[in-house]
Amino acid sequence: MTELGAEACSKALKSAGITMNEVEALFCSHSFGGRVVGQRILRFLGTRGIPVINLENACAGGSSAINMAWAAVASGQYQTVIALGVEQMSRGLIPPNADNYEAALGLTLPAKYAMRAKRHMKLYGTTEKQLALVAVKNTENGSLNPYAKNQIPLTLEQVLAARMIAEPLTLYQCTGNADGAAAVVITSKRRGNNQVRIRASVLGSGRYTSIKDEGLSADDELARRVGKLAYELAGVGPEDIDLAEVHDAFTIGEILAYENLGFCPVGEGGRFVEEGQSKRNGRLAVNASGGLIARGHPLGATGVAQACEVFWQLTKQAGERQVERARVGLTHTAGGATPNIGSGACVVSIFSI
Amino acid sequence: MTELGAEACSKALKSAGITMNEVEALFCSHSFGGRVVGQRILRFLGTRGIPVINLENACAGGSSAINMAWAAVASGQYQTVIALGVEQMSRGLIPPNADNYEAALGLTLPAKYAMRAKRHMKLYGTTEKQLALVAVKNTENGSLNPYAKNQIPLTLEQVLAARMIAEPLTLYQCTGNADGAAAVVITSKRRGNNQVRIRASVLGSGRYTSIKDEGLSADDELARRVGKLAYELAGVGPEDIDLAEVHDAFTIGEILAYENLGFCPVGEGGRFVEEGQSKRNGRLAVNASGGLIARGHPLGATGVAQACEVFWQLTKQAGERQVERARVGLTHTAGGATPNIGSGACVVSIFSI
Repeated sequence: MTELGAEACSKALKSAGITMNEVEALFCSHSFGGRVVGQRILRFLGTRGIPVINLENACAGGSSAINMAWAAVASGQYQTVIALGVEQMSRGLIPPNADNYEAALGLTLPAKYAMRAKRHMKLYGTTEKQLALVAVKNTENGSLNPYAKNQIPLTLEQVLAARMIAEPLTLYQCTGNADGAAAVVITSKRRGNNQVRIRASVLGSGRYTSIKDEGLSADDELARRVGKLAYELAGVGPEDIDLAEVHDAFTIGEILAYENLGFCPVGEGGRFVEEGQSKRNGRLAVNASGGLIARGHPLGATGVAQACEVFWQLTKQAGERQVERARVGLTHTAGGATPNIGSGACVVSIFSI
Repeated sequence: MTELGAEACSKALKSAGITMNEVEALFCSHSFGGRVVGQRILRFLGTRGIPVINLENACAGGSSAINMAWAAVASGQYQTVIALGVEQMSRGLIPPNADNYEAALGLTLPAKYAMRAKRHMKLYGTTEKQLALVAVKNTENGSLNPYAKNQIPLTLEQVLAARMIAEPLTLYQCTGNADGAAAVVITSKRRGNNQVRIRASVLGSGRYTSIKDEGLSADDELARRVGKLAYELAGVGPEDIDLAEVHDAFTIGEILAYENLGFCPVGEGGRFVEEGQSKRNGRLAVNASGGLIARGHPLGATGVAQACEVFWQLTKQAGERQVERARVGLTHTAGGATPNIGSGACVVSIFSI
């Protein structure tokens, strides 16, 4: 795992054209790496004694690292830092939190998202086909991404015919465990054109209500609230977003994100994907990287990987999956959505050239 | 564990005379709590959706939370935040980091500190008695601390006669696992006299060298470097410190801290404790709380507990263990000192009335 993290840092430094000597602090996100993970990774890079913060926010850990790093640079505390996410999930099962009684009784994340999907279908007439089309689109995008874990595009028939995990979500509609790392350099210095601007980054946590009120709802108060703040801070609206990397841990998650982030009206997320509006060449390219479903979901690394994709897209380095009109990009990650705490963490960040 | 954390937050809020409604963010330190620990704790307090950062820096996690919280308030990002540390270690063994080969081969922390002690004895003539006197002093202090895990004062004979853990360190010279939580409110608002000033907080990580160069040395470059920066930032020197809470995970650790933080010249730490200079009524009261040895060492909570003790001492709320002349206090925590990464994290913070 330390090797993975070091590789991501090295590549980010190379892309930014700087050396470790300019880096003043490291914000390292992971959930399962053990103690002082960032320090262990710095060893590979030649530790220089800089401050290291290891942080955890479940699936939103990587984007929380970006949020923290951005705040530290924006406030003038540092000029140049690295936000790193790293996770190795291939070596064992994820242990549930000891006090997550709902999960122990069966209300795991796939079950919860499945119920959200069922609710959405009932309320708005969303179809199984529409859900599956998210996976079709994202695996097609992933097939063009050399960093994706799953590079085989799937047909609608394959997605629908796959093994059922939690009705209506089939295997290919659920992200799987993955190993991975991603890093970005965040700096207040102007360094030429290989750079994008972070217009806003907002972190929020859920308001605990109850399973009945929130856990099984098709609504996501947290994403709406955090997204609204991010738009305000960035001075843009959903209509300005050219591409977005959103939290499609399950296909319904992406459909909910369309709605909660204002890409389409509530209830029309299914139609949005079916009409091809979220395709790479659609109105608003969503998960051009392949998303969590195809690129993979190494928990603490995901949010940083999303930012990498937006960086590549905005700087026209996305190769075959390049989105043509890519001037403003958004990332959205949701984490720790165990029912017994309502929602955990959510980060929305907005970037522009 | 969530209950422990919630209790600490509630008590800190009560002490500060504010409600959760004024708290804008939570910095939550732990090493073994699982995912989204801070959010789970907020549930008990009535979650309001504020940003939560869960962070890990091994034994220095709690003081890293204070460091981050202070930076966030000092930079104007927030006005009022909580820094919380929480750990429950009674429910199982601590799993070693998977890549810590030295520990797997026997170079665990007790062994490492024991070798540092042996080195100190050889270089400077430090005695077993001097080492043991640290535990005598700290258990005496702990016996006056209602929050201490070990409240029984030990005699020199008891400490020396205890079971040998790693020569020359006997059982009572090593901190044990503990459950615990501690919280502080950090605010830029003036709120009367029940408040102390954070004059400085500096976080650093080690410079990897090799076991030969650093791991077994009696020196601690990291603590000296971080301490020096903290003194500069605070505009004070070691001679101004009235009391200090330092990282006595093992008795030799406290002796090294005296020297590395400039309380006494290098090599004279043994004499410093033997002469009673670090007693509560000595020249510079060290670990008036009982330190890690008597108060206990719930990993991620320790750094915050140190700050609580300094707060109580500076505001004359330390009861029977009150240090008379308490105007400037210092905390020092070292974490993640596994040999294969040199040293991990170290935080030194300085507080004054």
